[in-house]
Amino acid sequence: MDIETFVERSLGEWRSQRSAHHLAFAHFEEVLSTINIESMSVDAPGVLELCQRYEVSPDSIVSPFRMSWKGESDWDEEQVIEGSTILVPVPTGAMTGKLLREQGYAETMESMGTYTLTDDGTFILTTAYERAAAEEKIWFATPNLRFRVSLIKTSSGKGVTTASFSSEVRRSASS
Amino acid sequence: MDIETFVERSLGEWRSQRSAHHLAFAHFEEVLSTINIESMSVDAPGVLELCQRYEVSPDSIVSPFRMSWKGESDWDEEQVIEGSTILVPVPTGAMTGKLLREQGYAETMESMGTYTLTDDGTFILTTAYERAAAEEKIWFATPNLRFRVSLIKTSSGKGVTTASFSSEVRRSASS
Repeated sequence: MDIETFVERSLGEWRSQRSAHHLAFAHFEEVLSTINIESMSVDAPGVLELCQRYEVSPDSIVSPFRMSWKGESDWDEEQVIEGSTILVPVPTGAMTGKLLREQGYAETMESMGTYTLTDDGTFILTTAYERAAAEEKIWFATPNLRFRVSLIKTSSGKGVTTASFSSEVRRSASS
Repeated sequence: MDIETFVERSLGEWRSQRSAHHLAFAHFEEVLSTINIESMSVDAPGVLELCQRYEVSPDSIVSPFRMSWKGESDWDEEQVIEGSTILVPVPTGAMTGKLLREQGYAETMESMGTYTLTDDGTFILTTAYERAAAEEKIWFATPNLRFRVSLIKTSSGKGVTTASFSSEVRRSASS
């Protein structure tokens, strides 16, 4: 599976069930949310801006998309977590590449991560931040069900502080 | 990584944080438990019995082990979930084999599953039951942290009813 196919299969509206494990304190956190993934054109303003900022030629990008989410956390039911960001794959090989991410308007940090697609169709994204590193694995169990394991690591990459797991079920077009 | 190495790395006492997602109802379940994994000798009575029942020659098995667990579920704090079972790998190749599992004294069903170890060190176990199928992926993030994703599927293998994720942190020998 190449990145175009992976993005294509990801488009749509998903109901996400996410559990986070804060490992040092054996603390659990649960979040239910709705995720929307929409394709964007390669010459959309937000996409071009992101290319410019990372000095990436718009000719080298494929399948840019917008991801937005809206959820509620169990530790504060009043708090609605909402956000949106633009993501731009920049392939460097058939199964590898960079992923640019816009800062968006909530919670996210601008970043450039590195992705790999494995033979069994798992998308693995590694992103280094100033004080931490993140690793995300996403795979499809069926066309309408995908799973995501996200790890927040110490910046050395040796320790894991938080591990989270999401089950994402596609909402049918008619509902 | 071969199965002997995988079992060797798994030995010890682990604190497990497990989240289950019941997908149809977007229901969450959380369980904290302690898991103990101890090696057994190939000629231990329970191991030989299991070989006999599945008509497997004791010469073809490696690294049998006992797994026991004790936990509490969030939906019933009175209920202590406890159990123990014997597991016996029967390699059929360098990275593949069968896994025999004893019925144990709680909750488990006797079974023979099929395992594969992937290039990146993930252990994948598939088990078919009469009315369902199970798929389990286990991998190490560090020598002292392993993750487990378990899926309960319909017997056709097409649908997933429950997905669960466990973070397992090694308890230090001194604590």
